[in-house]
Amino acid sequence: MDTNYFRRRASVRRYTAAEVTDALLRDIVADAAQAPNTGNMQLYSVVATRSPEVKEALAPAHFGQPAVTGAAVVLTVCADVRRYGKWCALAGVDPGTANLQALTYAGIDAVIFAQQLVTAAEVRGLGTCYMGTTTYNAPLIAGVLRLPQGVVPVATVTMGWPDESPAPSDRLPLEAILHTDTYHDPSDTEVAALYAPKEQLTANADYVAINGCSSLAEVYATKRYRRADNEHFSRVLRECLKAQGFNIDCP
Amino acid sequence: MDTNYFRRRASVRRYTAAEVTDALLRDIVADAAQAPNTGNMQLYSVVATRSPEVKEALAPAHFGQPAVTGAAVVLTVCADVRRYGKWCALAGVDPGTANLQALTYAGIDAVIFAQQLVTAAEVRGLGTCYMGTTTYNAPLIAGVLRLPQGVVPVATVTMGWPDESPAPSDRLPLEAILHTDTYHDPSDTEVAALYAPKEQLTANADYVAINGCSSLAEVYATKRYRRADNEHFSRVLRECLKAQGFNIDCP
Repeated sequence: MDTNYFRRRASVRRYTAAEVTDALLRDIVADAAQAPNTGNMQLYSVVATRSPEVKEALAPAHFGQPAVTGAAVVLTVCADVRRYGKWCALAGVDPGTANLQALTYAGIDAVIFAQQLVTAAEVRGLGTCYMGTTTYNAPLIAGVLRLPQGVVPVATVTMGWPDESPAPSDRLPLEAILHTDTYHDPSDTEVAALYAPKEQLTANADYVAINGCSSLAEVYATKRYRRADNEHFSRVLRECLKAQGFNIDCP
Repeated sequence: MDTNYFRRRASVRRYTAAEVTDALLRDIVADAAQAPNTGNMQLYSVVATRSPEVKEALAPAHFGQPAVTGAAVVLTVCADVRRYGKWCALAGVDPGTANLQALTYAGIDAVIFAQQLVTAAEVRGLGTCYMGTTTYNAPLIAGVLRLPQGVVPVATVTMGWPDESPAPSDRLPLEAILHTDTYHDPSDTEVAALYAPKEQLTANADYVAINGCSSLAEVYATKRYRRADNEHFSRVLRECLKAQGFNIDCP
């Protein structure tokens, strides 16, 4: 396998009108299902939405990002203990999954599956993009996709044939993310050095200026990922988890 | 790229004594870092443990699974808002990440990164195995790896040169996990049919008998993933999240 794929990849948000055939999609989903998962329980599902009406209904949940309606297929990957729970009920046993730990391992398995789905699609030449809005507007998505109790949307991947060829995004130096044996807590000087290359990119410098900010961190913390929004969408997510049957309070 | 890789892959728990060189590991981590992430914040870290002493110290957290001490390197992937938080603090802005939503997107990004790490390693011929015990014993792991506030272990991947060639695991039929347009809630009859091939595998039938159970679901729910354990480890995880500085109560 060509390992150059990894460094060259980039998310694709614009797609041609060409369809992704059902055979191809099934092939990709079957590849993704071979990803590792907890105890081979496969506590995830994927809802593949091609219907223009359902894509239109999902769009507001993703704040109208055009990739949603523009993609051949929108894949909503969910943590899913429902099927497993029904299987246990048929055998007369308690699945015991309405808790934080089961939600966590189901969620991890859902994301592992989603990322294998992305890789399996991208190596076939398809373009994909995660919608980070999925856990923000989980209740809207649950409503549109009619997700029953035991099912929570975790990640959305838009997929289609690329109509753009973006360059790979910049990344922090390896030293920022890779620790040896135990965690190295970076000093302020080290942190400043790790982020300096990113801050010096022309695109980021322009982005700071356009936003009327004095640093890239300020754009992130005061415009893009504000504490007030994070806290608001934490409450929304928490309510959604409860509505979908998960008790994260650990009584 | 050879798409046959996906269907052939299987987790590897036994490794030769051959080392994974630092250059190779860095190459794989750099590949993994090119995986998609939320807003390019890269809210994750990976602790690569090769020291026999630290591996021994981690082993109990993974219930003594031999893959931990037997692997050339143990990779603990963490949700990490600490580095980002320090960067924001240097700029005089509030990162606003001590909440459920930020923990969720950092956790999702950590798992996407972990799965790209697994794929980048496996396509180079290395064997890997996730340790599902990571979120069970997160406090122990945080202690051994000296994880500071803002950092939570999410997934552990053992990695080394394979000393076994396991066949790919069985998976549920595609119909179990793939839904069209909206979610299809399976009937009891459908659920029974989806799990029948798995229940009929000789290995699983033997496994049910060895455990003195009358169904595979009973082995899962009463031996392997018991409600009482899930609830206990939910409380442990919840305390760990709090200790690491995340408030999931959404005040």
